[in-house]
Formats: sequence, C-alpha cells, structure tokens
Amino acid sequence: MGSFKGHALPGTFFLLAGVWWGMKHSLCFATRRSKSCSRVSSRASQRRLELVEGSAVLFCSVVGMLLEQFAADGPALQLYDSSEHHWRFLMNWQHSTMYLFFALSAAVSLVVQSSEAAPLALDRLMLAVAFFNEGFLFLYHLHGRSPLDVHVHQLLLFCVFGLALLCFLEIFHRGNLVLELLRCTLTMLQGSWFWQIGFVLYPPSGLLWDQTDHNNLMFVTMCFSWHLAFAMLTISGIYAAVTCVVRSRLRRTPPMEMGLLKPRDGEPESEDEIL
Amino acid sequence: MGSFKGHALPGTFFLLAGVWWGMKHSLCFATRRSKSCSRVSSRASQRRLELVEGSAVLFCSVVGMLLEQFAADGPALQLYDSSEHHWRFLMNWQHSTMYLFFALSAAVSLVVQSSEAAPLALDRLMLAVAFFNEGFLFLYHLHGRSPLDVHVHQLLLFCVFGLALLCFLEIFHRGNLVLELLRCTLTMLQGSWFWQIGFVLYPPSGLLWDQTDHNNLMFVTMCFSWHLAFAMLTISGIYAAVTCVVRSRLRRTPPMEMGLLKPRDGEPESEDEIL
Amino acid sequence: MGSFKGHALPGTFFLLAGVWWGMKHSLCFATRRSKSCSRVSSRASQRRLELVEGSAVLFCSVVGMLLEQFAADGPALQLYDSSEHHWRFLMNWQHSTMYLFFALSAAVSLVVQSSEAAPLALDRLMLAVAFFNEGFLFLYHLHGRSPLDVHVHQLLLFCVFGLALLCFLEIFHRGNLVLELLRCTLTMLQGSWFWQIGFVLYPPSGLLWDQTDHNNLMFVTMCFSWHLAFAMLTISGIYAAVTCVVRSRLRRTPPMEMGLLKPRDGEPESEDEIL
Amino acid sequence: MGSFKGHALPGTFFLLAGVWWGMKHSLCFATRRSKSCSRVSSRASQRRLELVEGSAVLFCSVVGMLLEQFAADGPALQLYDSSEHHWRFLMNWQHSTMYLFFALSAAVSLVVQSSEAAPLALDRLMLAVAFFNEGFLFLYHLHGRSPLDVHVHQLLLFCVFGLALLCFLEIFHRGNLVLELLRCTLTMLQGSWFWQIGFVLYPPSGLLWDQTDHNNLMFVTMCFSWHLAFAMLTISGIYAAVTCVVRSRLRRTPPMEMGLLKPRDGEPESEDEIL
Repeated sequence: MGSFKGHALPGTFFLLAGVWWGMKHSLCFATRRSKSCSRVSSRASQRRLELVEGSAVLFCSVVGMLLEQFAADGPALQLYDSSEHHWRFLMNWQHSTMYLFFALSAAVSLVVQSSEAAPLALDRLMLAVAFFNEGFLFLYHLHGRSPLDVHVHQLLLFCVFGLALLCFLEIFHRGNLVLELLRCTLTMLQGSWFWQIGFVLYPPSGLLWDQTDHNNLMFVTMCFSWHLAFAMLTISGIYAAVTCVVRSRLRRTPPMEMGLLKPRDGEPESEDEIL
Repeated sequence: MGSFKGHALPGTFFLLAGVWWGMKHSLCFATRRSKSCSRVSSRASQRRLELVEGSAVLFCSVVGMLLEQFAADGPALQLYDSSEHHWRFLMNWQHSTMYLFFALSAAVSLVVQSSEAAPLALDRLMLAVAFFNEGFLFLYHLHGRSPLDVHVHQLLLFCVFGLALLCFLEIFHRGNLVLELLRCTLTMLQGSWFWQIGFVLYPPSGLLWDQTDHNNLMFVTMCFSWHLAFAMLTISGIYAAVTCVVRSRLRRTPPMEMGLLKPRDGEPESEDEIL
Repeated sequence: MGSFKGHALPGTFFLLAGVWWGMKHSLCFATRRSKSCSRVSSRASQRRLELVEGSAVLFCSVVGMLLEQFAADGPALQLYDSSEHHWRFLMNWQHSTMYLFFALSAAVSLVVQSSEAAPLALDRLMLAVAFFNEGFLFLYHLHGRSPLDVHVHQLLLFCVFGLALLCFLEIFHRGNLVLELLRCTLTMLQGSWFWQIGFVLYPPSGLLWDQTDHNNLMFVTMCFSWHLAFAMLTISGIYAAVTCVVRSRLRRTPPMEMGLLKPRDGEPESEDEIL
Repeated sequence: MGSFKGHALPGTFFLLAGVWWGMKHSLCFATRRSKSCSRVSSRASQRRLELVEGSAVLFCSVVGMLLEQFAADGPALQLYDSSEHHWRFLMNWQHSTMYLFFALSAAVSLVVQSSEAAPLALDRLMLAVAFFNEGFLFLYHLHGRSPLDVHVHQLLLFCVFGLALLCFLEIFHRGNLVLELLRCTLTMLQGSWFWQIGFVLYPPSGLLWDQTDHNNLMFVTMCFSWHLAFAMLTISGIYAAVTCVVRSRLRRTPPMEMGLLKPRDGEPESEDEIL
C-alpha cells in the first residue's frame, strides 16, 4: 500500500469519522443540557444514529479489507509462497488485519446498541482494542526504513496510542464531553496526518524529500503540532456551530411537553451512566 | 523447559483458565441482571465456585513447581554448583518461581473467600502481582537469544503486563464485566500464544524457522493480532451461549420467590462493591 | 533563542504563573472552607480572577510569539529558503508553536469562563495539551547537542510531562487542592529550571562549563532536586501566608449574612464538581 | 557510602518502616471494622500514632543527613573544590538530598496531622515525591558502573517508582487497605533488597562476585522475586496476628458504650474520606 492513494484513503476515512463524531457528541451534549427536549425521543434517535454509524464503519472496513486483498497488486488471500519458502504481501495482510479489528469493533457496537444483552461500554473497549492493534502493527512495521519514513510513522503512533488510551478511559467515564472532544480531535489529527505522510513520502509533485536531513525531521515534528492545532480549531468550530443551531431551534419551540414524558425504563438509562 | 511440551503445558492451563473465567463471569452477570433469581443462593454458589477455582489453581501450580524441580532433567532443589562455582538450572528455578506466585495468589483467594477477615480485593492484587512477576522474570530472560526467540517472548510481555495492569484496575472496579471479559480474552491469548511459541521455536515437523529473517518477525507480529481476534471471538461465543441458556431457563421457572428473600446481611455485599 | 535572555524570559513567566496559581488556589480553598463567607460573591470574584488570568496569559503568549518572529534575528514569518532549498529559523518557529498552544489554552479558558456553553474542564484539557506540546517539541529538539545540553533539557521534560499529566488528571478531580498545589510547585520548578539552564549553558560570567564531564551531569541532576525542594518550600510559604490572612480577616468580620444568600442556580455549581 | 554499612543502614530503616506500617494499617482496619469500638478514641489514638511516626521519620532522616555530611570521609558541607575546579563528594550529597526529601515529607505529615489547615492527603503526596526523588537520583547514579552493580540498582528502581506511584494513588484512595498492604510490602522489599545489594556488592565474606557474568544477573533477578514473596508472607503474618489479637480483645470487652459516642465533628471525618 506504499503509495499516495494508500495513505489518502484511510486519511479521508478518519477525517470524516472525526467530523461525524464531533457533530454527534456536540448534538448529544446540547440536547442533554436543554431539559425541555423530551429524553425518550432523544435517546431513541441517538440509538438510531449509533446503528447508522456502526453499519457505515462496518461497510467501510470490509471494503478496505477487500481492496487490500483483491486490488491489482494484492495477495488475493495468498500468504505463503511455498515454492520459494518466504512470506508474500505481508504489508497488505497487515493492513487487512487493521481493517479487520475496526470491522469487529463496528460489529460489536451494532450488537450492543440493538440488543440489551451486553454492557454498553463494550463498544468503547473494542474501539480501544482496534486502535491499539493499529498502533501495535505500525510499531513493528518500520524496520529498515529511512529516518524520515520512520519518524512520520512514529509521530502517528503518539496519536494512535493516545486514541487507544482515551477509548479505554471512556469505559469508565462514558459521556464525558471533554474526553469525547479530545477523541474527535485526535481522530481528525490521524486523518490529516495520513494525508501529510502521503505528501511527504510520495509527493505528487515528484520532488522527493531528503530522507535523512535532520532539518526535515524537525520541520515534520513541528508540522504535527500544527495539524493538532488545526484539528482542535475545526472541532471547536463544529461544536460552536452545533450548539448555536440547537439553541436557536429550542428557543422557537416552546417546552410544552415537559414533565409529561418520562424515561421509558430506568434500566438502560442508569447502565449508561454506571458502566 | 525449552521444549514444545514445556510451552504447551502452561498454554493449555491458561486456555482453560480463560474459558473457565469467561463462563464464570458471564454466568454471574446474567444471573445478577435477572432479578427474579434469588440473590442469596447466587451469592453462596458464587463463593463455592471461587473456592473450587482457587483449589484447582493451587493444585496445578504446585504440580507445576514439582514438575519443574523433579522432572527428568530438573534441579531437584539444587541451585548452586559449589565445585564449579556457578549457578545451575536457573531456567527451571525461574519457572518454579513463576508457579510459586500463582500458588500464593490462589492461597490468598481461598483465604479471602472462605473467611471474612481480609478485604475481597486482595485476590485481584495477588493475581496482579503474580502476572507482574511472570512478566518481570520473562523481561530479563531473553539475553543472548536469537531475534525471533526474543520477539515472540516480547509479544508475550504485552499480554502478561496487560493482564497485571487489568487485575490491578479490578481492585477499584470489581465486578465490571467489560474488564472481566478483557481479562478472559488476554488469558486465552496468553494460552494460545504459548502454543504458538512452541510451534515456532520447537516445530514438531522438525522444519526449523529462520531465526533472523525479518519477514518471519513481521509475520509473527501479525499472527499475534490474529490470536487476539480469535480469543475475542471465542469469549464472545461463550458469553452469548451462557446468556442464552440463562435466559431460556429463567423464562421457564416463574419468579415466584421474588421479594421474599433479602441479602443475608448488608456487610459483605457492600464491601464487594466498595473495595 | 539560544541565549541567556531566551531562557530567562519564559523562566520568569513560569515563576510568576506558579506564584499566582499558588495564591489563587490557596485563597479559593481557604474561602471555600470558611462557610461564613457567602458563596455567591466568592464564586463571582473567582470567575473574575480567571478572566484576568486568561487575558494575561493570552497577552504574554502573543507577545512571546511576536518576539520570536520579529526580534532582531527572527524569521519574520519566513520559513523556507527556496533559493537554497532548506528550512530556516526552525528553532524560532518551534518556540512560536509552543507559545501558540498556550495562547489557544488561554483563549479557551476565557470562553469557558465567560459563557456557559462549554464544560469547565475544557480549560484543564487545553492546558494539558499545551504542556504536552511543549514537551513533545523539546523531545525532538535535542539532536546532536552536547551531553550536558541534552541532560538539562531532559530533566526539564520530567517537569513538563508531569505538568501535562497533572492537568489531565484535574479534568476528573477538579478542585482537588493537593493536585493544584503540586501543579503550582511543578510550574515554579519549570520557571527556576529555565533560569538554571540559562546559567549552565550561557553563563553570564563567561566561564563555560565542561559539556561532557560526567560529574557536571551528576551535579545538575542533584540541582534539579534542590530546585524542586525550593519550589515546594515557596509554595508552602504562600499557602501558609494566605491561610493566615484569610483566617484573621474572617475572625474580625462576624458571619452575619450566613443563611441569607444561596447559590444563584444549582447548575454551574454542580457542573464544577462533576466535570 | 559505597560500603556494606551504607546499604545496611537504610535497609534496616525501610524494613522497620514496613513492619511498622503493616502493624498500623492492620490495627486501623481491624478497629474500624469492629463497630463496637468507639470511633472518637480510635481517631484520636490514630492521630497520636501518626505524630509519633512523623517525629521518628524526621529524626532518622536528619540523623542520616548529618551522618552523610560529617562522617569520617564525608564532605562536611563542602561541595566544590575551587582549587582543582571539580565537584567533590557528589555521592554523599546525593544521599543527603534523598534524606532531605524524606525529612520534608515527615515535617509535612506532622503539620497536617497536628493542625487542620491543610488537607490530609498532602502527606501521601509528599511521600510520593520523596520516593520519586529517590528513584530519580538513583536513575542517573549508575553511569559507568559494572553490569551487576547497575542491574541490582535497576531492580531497586522497580520498587522505588512503584512506591511513588502507590503513594500517589493513595491521594485518591486513602484508607484502601489493599493499597496500604501493598505499600508495606514494597517498603519491606526495598529494605531487604538494600541488604541484598550490600551482600552482593560488598560481600562480608570477602569473596567478590563476578560483576559481568550473565548467570549472576539472572540469579539476582530471581532473588528479587523471592524477596518480594518473603515480604508478602511477612506482611500477611503481621496482618493475621494483629487481626486475631484485636478480635480476641473485643470479644472480652462488651460493647457497652455503643451509640453514646459520636464523631466529634463531621468536618475532618469527611475530609478524610473525600480528599
């Protein structure tokens, strides 16, 4: 997958995921705050949002796996060349494995949201495992590459392991907006950094970067900080826009049904807070 | 213990432990949820389960220690060869030490469950110490081995230290199903990875792997991810099966005794949640 | 910025910040304890304090960025020398980036304190990100320098990453005096250590230190401990002085209005404790 | 301080501290559990215990500092030899600094226990800082020593940094017996390991160990595990003995005053649990 497109594809995916999460969590927080909004409807619509999200992630991950396997130069499920006694297409297989874990995470999210058999926090655990697995495979991915190549991927690891840790923390602090916004930010950072890696290692202009110049390494490090600042500003903008829209809507619709509707049943509501 | 059998034995032990824990925690969670089931009986039977488990672990650990010491090529409690002034059988002694800590952990679990003199959370602490000790000894175990040998054991460390951390977290979040399922998964992963180490380093087919080929290292890394996915699927299957069985049982027996039985005494119940 | 002044400037800034925070948190804790003091007024004045603090930090950070860019030997927004194809003034740009994150943190603090649209804990998150970013840039800052230079900056990293972790913890434990005093202490430590770095690397006396002597490294390590002890003593002194002043004041003014004033509205009060 | 005595002295100190803490925390837990015992008296006597402990630690630390400075081959407050332009007695000064932080910790503990001006949790924070400082100085202490020497001190670091982390955790989970027993265990481990270091590096028998033999390193690693097991068994024994004694005492004295005595005032009691 060592190509510009191979980095732009997951980059776009993560950028969209970051924006989507930013909108979802801002919306949930804004509606949760304004108590005039009936809780039952918000809860049901939130569940529908989660199901749509899970299906989309599952679909994208499966497409990603199929692309890795059956694209022009893919392994087509072949792993070991028994005539020459060596492994083939290890890169493609590793990327397929990364997609597999995101697919598993999405599948668990669908099960958890549609039935009530398992605790809600399982979806965050699976997301944490998926990010950890991505970082874990990248960690042993870098043997024998040029210094600049190693460096840009190492910076990515800060982001990926940070995401894994954050999702793990959310098992215990579900619904904490601060953690959720940080997760959105880091997901966007990961997306835009994949694009940056594509531009640095496979420049579309054709002008290759010097892979060993220390100044390039230092510039790239600073560039990572700028991407982080950019991601923070984007998420802030999304949060501000969503909050404004929700507020102006609520001002127009008088809170007439307040007090009439109660949470359907206490069980899942409390579980959401406890687990 | 550098042999296929020497890795298959603890591997089988951890696989069984993972499956057992998966069944136990799923059962506890399912019965806790269905309130029709009387809490006293479930609590007493849970305590009995814990005692059986503790005894089994204690028995296995002691057998493991004896095997390491008195097997054909074991030290038989001899450690220092004073005629030649050097240590002997250090490997066997290190493995005995690992078993010793699991035996201590099982003994503490028995004491904690059978009397009420000590806080319940002590058993998780001792388990965390036992896993930490295993990882600690493996960490300084790898000097001067081939790259592949070092790598497969390093991957094991992710799993072992992860388990130690997880058990430590359970001191504060006892009874959190998400953490418990993750512990089951990592225990199964450890078991199946021991088998994998046996196959890689001492292949029964006799065809030795190239110990320095970087592609082998990369394949083995990916293989670890697959073992993790396999362990997650197995534990999910166990959880689903247990939940289904408990539900179908409860539907048949009407909840007639509901409300009649109360928790015997508040003390141990609350302690379970607090500590 | 490799000069004595370039280290003394941020050093002074952090020293003042540490003293200021020490006074602020001691005052808040002392007034919170003495219940005779009306809570509404204390809350309003606390909010005013936060606004003043945010504005000051924002002003200083922007001035720092401008100084780095437009001082005598600064880049004046120039980054890439396209005629010679290499990066220029990377150091100044990295320092500007550090200031940028502190400016962002101050801006978010102003928004969070003046409106009620976002959760309060966001300001601690942004502070954690700003400190993390500072440490992150320093981490890749040290390539090819002398051992002593690397060592004094590495010691700084203990302090900076410690601060980042501490601010992150405060997201969950807001208002915990112990964490707040530790944050003041580490901030003062960072300030005085910047001064120390200036004295070690650019001695005003002109007598250069031997950059490779191991004894110098060992002395500098111990010196870091002494700075820590000094910072702890200063913060203790500030805390003791503030507590005494508050107590003597309260003794003179009789608690006449007790019970008349209630918290204005429950919402923001509870949020302060929860988020 | 590179001598057998120089390691035996702090070793004995930490062993005694471990035993003392084990007895104190077991006693507190046993009396807290048996509700017949009046809470006021237990609280007052606990405070007295803490004051005695703080004074003893303060005394020992000051004596340690004086010994390091004014013993036969000590620096007597001299640090820099300006005639030869190099640092002198750096080792002694580093050890003095370690003692200084324990003295500060004891002083803060005395203040916190005798007045009510500061939150109780400050004593744990200071203890964490003292242990961290010890580990921090040891970390940069090991340059240019033999492999065995470095190894035994590195193992010590596991213990010291573990203690620092544990004390930091106790800020949030004060009075959690499991954490307290683990702290006692690690403190005893540190003490007995200091003795072991003395025996390995300065054997009283005069037979020097081979400082570079890898087998010695592996034996020493295993030995550390044994010390840990020994410390755990000792603390378990102390806990069992104290619990038995308290129980047999309580059975003899009938709980006649139950219900008559109430906690003196709610304030400090709740603070103990919250902070």
